[in-house]
Amino acid sequence: MLPGRNASHYRLTAVSARFGFELVSESDGARRGRLTLAHGTVETPAFMPVGTQGAVKGVTIDHVDALGAEIILGNTYHLHLRPGDDLIARLGGLHAFNGWTRPILTDSGGFQVFSLAGRRTVTEERVVFQSHLDGSECSLAPESAADIQSRLGSDIAMVFDECVKWPVTREDAAAAMHRTLRWARRGRDRFEALSSGQVPEVARPTPGQAQFGIVQGATFKDLREESVAGTVAVGFEGYAIGGLSVGEPSDIMYDLAGHTAARLPRLSPRYLMGVGMPNDLVECVARGIDMFDCVLPTRNARNGQLFTRFGPISIKNAKYAEDLRPPDPECACATCRRHSRAYLRHLYMAGEMSAAALNTVHNLHFYLDTMRGIRKAIEFGRFGEFRQRFLDTYTRPSSD
Amino acid sequence: MLPGRNASHYRLTAVSARFGFELVSESDGARRGRLTLAHGTVETPAFMPVGTQGAVKGVTIDHVDALGAEIILGNTYHLHLRPGDDLIARLGGLHAFNGWTRPILTDSGGFQVFSLAGRRTVTEERVVFQSHLDGSECSLAPESAADIQSRLGSDIAMVFDECVKWPVTREDAAAAMHRTLRWARRGRDRFEALSSGQVPEVARPTPGQAQFGIVQGATFKDLREESVAGTVAVGFEGYAIGGLSVGEPSDIMYDLAGHTAARLPRLSPRYLMGVGMPNDLVECVARGIDMFDCVLPTRNARNGQLFTRFGPISIKNAKYAEDLRPPDPECACATCRRHSRAYLRHLYMAGEMSAAALNTVHNLHFYLDTMRGIRKAIEFGRFGEFRQRFLDTYTRPSSD
Repeated sequence: MLPGRNASHYRLTAVSARFGFELVSESDGARRGRLTLAHGTVETPAFMPVGTQGAVKGVTIDHVDALGAEIILGNTYHLHLRPGDDLIARLGGLHAFNGWTRPILTDSGGFQVFSLAGRRTVTEERVVFQSHLDGSECSLAPESAADIQSRLGSDIAMVFDECVKWPVTREDAAAAMHRTLRWARRGRDRFEALSSGQVPEVARPTPGQAQFGIVQGATFKDLREESVAGTVAVGFEGYAIGGLSVGEPSDIMYDLAGHTAARLPRLSPRYLMGVGMPNDLVECVARGIDMFDCVLPTRNARNGQLFTRFGPISIKNAKYAEDLRPPDPECACATCRRHSRAYLRHLYMAGEMSAAALNTVHNLHFYLDTMRGIRKAIEFGRFGEFRQRFLDTYTRPSSD
Repeated sequence: MLPGRNASHYRLTAVSARFGFELVSESDGARRGRLTLAHGTVETPAFMPVGTQGAVKGVTIDHVDALGAEIILGNTYHLHLRPGDDLIARLGGLHAFNGWTRPILTDSGGFQVFSLAGRRTVTEERVVFQSHLDGSECSLAPESAADIQSRLGSDIAMVFDECVKWPVTREDAAAAMHRTLRWARRGRDRFEALSSGQVPEVARPTPGQAQFGIVQGATFKDLREESVAGTVAVGFEGYAIGGLSVGEPSDIMYDLAGHTAARLPRLSPRYLMGVGMPNDLVECVARGIDMFDCVLPTRNARNGQLFTRFGPISIKNAKYAEDLRPPDPECACATCRRHSRAYLRHLYMAGEMSAAALNTVHNLHFYLDTMRGIRKAIEFGRFGEFRQRFLDTYTRPSSD
């Protein structure tokens, strides 16, 4: 244990009274927990469907509700540009705007901004960038990212960080990690000012908003350790591991996620950003991760890839043209209960929008159901067994 | 009454035993009826959502079910080209293929084929055309259109007809109408051979399939009368009015629909093809029409037009950017229960697919709910009053 992390956790729990995290049980390195947020509780380990523009792509909010998702993600960068956080604040925050009543986590915009290679300038003060919508000049800084997320009214705001690509030199990784630490201090100071009512001009539709810090350091373990220590010293309600799943091999990602998670405060939630494939979720739960988000289930659905217990299948494949089986015969999702591979292939080939909706419902169900299975397994102290069985089935050569 | 039409109706009811139509009540020219089809009953007047490629565009089959639609339409032309009626027959017919368990009506392909100007050649025998998908040469004839629909297994098949554009000369309209009559005879002969088991090589997943004839004659009343007499003489389970709503002014369309409907067998269902706007439905129910189909609620939804009791609104309009009201505050659809105009505008402007789904759910609900209101009004003998109130509200300048 790093010195002071529990103290930091408890101090911060007091700052945002509605936030809570309890560990329910542990099994084979995996943690079964419960997050208490302003808009409800979230059982962990949890997968958060990505709702970039205030909507989970391909499906309606009713679909996401019916799938049993307990928390979704919104993107600060996209919502700031369109429709604008000012507008969303005037309408009562993101929940009032999109009709989703359960918790929302907003990212900080850092990842998107740093992806705009060639259209952004980074200084110590802020990042200046061109909007991908109309080329207009915009900027984000630790303070404004906190303000935007305050206006959006998410349950969990993320601190503004500097992301680096993979591969990256040690020097560049260290510089970005150190800047992320300085920005963490600024972002937390602003968040605390917002929380304690010192910035009345910035709307705060969710008074009980929490804020998570982000650990950087690329694939350098000592940099990750330094980042953990510095981020925990600032103190946040939870901690994210950023800068992974950006192209590095899986085994490196698993190793770094595990190495970092083990050094984070035991009593705070741990969120591995942007991960991943179904087997990645299982492997990283085994390394102590509590929360995940990823565009794969939704994006791949739109491209015709369906996840099943026996691994992913591409519904475009001609061999499914007359296959009357559902994507996964044991799956209980609305798509599998009603439709065959043959029909889903037809919809995809015919360019029907409902292909995206039906595929997305199935893939999100698969992810959320995998998490339900993981949680049950941990509760029964059988996570190691679950993990082995899941991976054996998922990576077994398919008979289809 | 034209001579022989009831006789023809009763004779044909025997040919396809599962088909039935009863008139429940009448009010101010409007008819409240009940269709009995192979896959269930349909309360009339009815609106049939269009499911061109075996899917209602923008929404899932679950959505269409939840909306309470009792019958949907499928397009013979599109399904013949992709995925192919042979494939659909091997999989058990269109119902088994798309998971829709209630009745389906398939058009004959005539309208689509005649829309392929410059890519089709019409002879007495058949129409040869190029596929819009790959340019390959295909053909449709009265017999093959019946065979394709037999393989699709719809509850109601439409006879193959020749459609003309508007405006059209009397000479061209008469020629197409006469050919349609000759094709009606051929189409009916083939249908009867299929129904009575004389063509075992053509799959027939819905043995109780019915077939409707189509009255043509453009805007010439005497041609329409001749077409009615000839079509009824051939004898079908129901009769459609084709060739209207192809560009002619509304008052001409209403006049022709009324003139034609009044001459059709009282005890057979009357289907006005391709109509129309919500006020068109009310006006044509007043003229004795029982069934409608139209792409407007679904197509316009995808273009951001929402139908409301106070007329259509364009959700793109900047004035809705901060409008927290649902599209129609008194509407009970899933979209209006959860979402505001502001959110729907945002989804549309941001290019989210769920905009199409949510708008389509609302528009189909509006159409189906209008039909529910019409049916109730006829049952209570108050259709005249309903019609007046609907039209007053629908065409009143909106306050939005």
